[in-house]
Order: sequence, then structure tokens, then C-alpha cells
Amino acid sequence: MNAASRTKVSVFIATSLDGFIARPDGGIDWLMNAGEDAEDCGYKEFFDSVDALVMGRNSFEKVLEFDHWPYQEKPVVVLSKSLTEMPDNLRGLVKIDSSSPEELIEKLSLDGSKRIYLDGGNVIQSFLRAGLVDDITLTKIPVLIGQGRPLFGELQYDIKLQHLSTQSWDNGFVQSSYEVVGS
Amino acid sequence: MNAASRTKVSVFIATSLDGFIARPDGGIDWLMNAGEDAEDCGYKEFFDSVDALVMGRNSFEKVLEFDHWPYQEKPVVVLSKSLTEMPDNLRGLVKIDSSSPEELIEKLSLDGSKRIYLDGGNVIQSFLRAGLVDDITLTKIPVLIGQGRPLFGELQYDIKLQHLSTQSWDNGFVQSSYEVVGS
Repeated sequence: MNAASRTKVSVFIATSLDGFIARPDGGIDWLMNAGEDAEDCGYKEFFDSVDALVMGRNSFEKVLEFDHWPYQEKPVVVLSKSLTEMPDNLRGLVKIDSSSPEELIEKLSLDGSKRIYLDGGNVIQSFLRAGLVDDITLTKIPVLIGQGRPLFGELQYDIKLQHLSTQSWDNGFVQSSYEVVGS
Repeated sequence: MNAASRTKVSVFIATSLDGFIARPDGGIDWLMNAGEDAEDCGYKEFFDSVDALVMGRNSFEKVLEFDHWPYQEKPVVVLSKSLTEMPDNLRGLVKIDSSSPEELIEKLSLDGSKRIYLDGGNVIQSFLRAGLVDDITLTKIPVLIGQGRPLFGELQYDIKLQHLSTQSWDNGFVQSSYEVVGS
């Protein structure tokens, strides 16, 4: 599959200034509290630009705790080897898949997906290691939480990024977008 | 000692986008290579604003590898319980101290220091835990290195920050300044 026909893989995520996407127990109170008067931070525009979402089990289970399903009618793939149950209202919208990043992107590309929204620390890390992330939009929340689930993980090689743009908001959120250049 | 008379403690540091200040072996090639056409990024203005530097042994030993001593005539305190030797040309400029953060800041305050430049991961972490960092200027280099010495460490409590300003440069460096609000 040539690069032009491959599904573009995009990350759009917030972390604490010390790089965590959640507390050790998965808690995101530090983000929700910071976000009470939060801006949209470009989320809607980003969301509207993707054909589908791919996330890990942790992210999926966190989203199930929300008052409502936030992804409308977009197809969602949950990457998990252990998950088997699915709430009735999500059958048809959410698929469980245990493919490798390469296999999944090949399938999504053949299905005609132009761009997917990749979410969740472990999933993002495995796609980065596979060289399959195209761009990252990272919003830094002005708080240090000291421990938790890190966005980034170990790599065999450096990954160079091309900075595209940065903006900040009155609530102190700072958002930078990068294109992944490669190893 | 009241807050008004206490030495202000400032951090001015660069990390990879994944939050490391150095590779596991202390290497900063990823920073030096990125910085070949680097801007000053406000370093001189910051450096001119401090009375003294406080750093850990790792940072000190890294600086000794440089072609020349970069801190001019500014007093430097190296916080170390193990370091005993000092190059001849630095006697008088560099003091070794094994005080706690609180003790050191009390001494520097009594000496009339208005603002110090705190450098090095372990030292910054211990001052943050002691509630003794006033502001942080963090320059993010557009690269993921996957492992290394992290800037931030474990905390007992969240530390809230007030975002002051953010700017970016053509080389992709993104610099944000924060005031430490507290726990």
C-alpha cells in the first residue's frame, strides 16, 4: 500500500504539563476541572475531519462512564485482545478488533477511511513504534500531577517531529500541532 | 522568612516533547543537533536576570564537558552530597553544598540573592516537592527520544501552574512560561 492511499492517523489529546493523560487509576479530574471554562480548542473541527476512531480498552471504558456517548455516529474501533462485551446501544457503532497497527490500518485504508482519530496512551505508543502516526495535536494543561499514565512510551529510535503551529488560551491551555517526520 | 524577601527560584530548561532533559546516559545530542540553527530563545535575558545558579551534580558534570564554562562570573552552587573535587579554574566561582532546598534558599535569601536559576532534573524535582519553585520556562524540542532522564518526577500533591506566555520559533522549538501557583 502506498502512502498516498493509506489512512492518515491523527492524535488529538491533552496531557498534564508532566505528560500524563490520566492518573494511575485512570482519573481525569485534573483535566475536567481545568476544563470547566475550557475552550473547544479546535476539537470539533478535528473531530469533523476524521472518518473513524481507534482507541484502546482503557479509553473506551473511560468514555463509557460519561453521561452520553460522545462520538455520534462515527465508527469506533476498540483495540483489545480481552474485551468481549459491548453495551446494546453501541452494537453496530463500535467494533472490537485485535489486529496489529499495520493490519488495522490496512483494513481501514481498504475501507476508504481517509483519516482516523487515534486515542489512548498504549494504542498511541504502539502506533508510534510502528511508524504509523502522521500528526499529533497536543494540548498541555497547566498542572503537574506527578504520576499517572504517560502519553508517550519507550521507543527504539528517536522520532522527529515538524512543528506546525502553537496557540494558547486564556485558561492556560497550550496546544501544539506536529507532523511526524519519522525516525 | 516572608515570601517577599525570599530568593525567587526560576527554572529555564529544554526537554524533548516526551519530557526528557537527557538520554539515559546523560546525552543531549538530540538537543544540540536540534539547536544548530537555534534561536537564543530568551536565554540571555533570563541569564542576565539571575544572581546565581543552583544545579545538581549531573548538570555540573555535563557542563564540565563543554568547551568553555558558560556561566561567566555568576556564583554557582552544586547541590551534592558526594562531590568533593573541583577544577582549579572554578574554585571561588563554584561552591558545593549539601543543604536541603529550604536551607539553601534561606542562605541565598540572607545573602541578598533576588533570583536564582535552578537547573537539573533531580534538583528541580526536589525543589518542586518542597514548594520552592516560583516559575518555569520550558522549551519543547520537536523530537521524541523514548527514554531518558525526566524533567518532572513524583509529587505528593498536584501543583497548579499559571500560564504566562508561549512562543515558538521557525526551528520548531515551543517555549511556555508558567508561574507556580501551588498545591
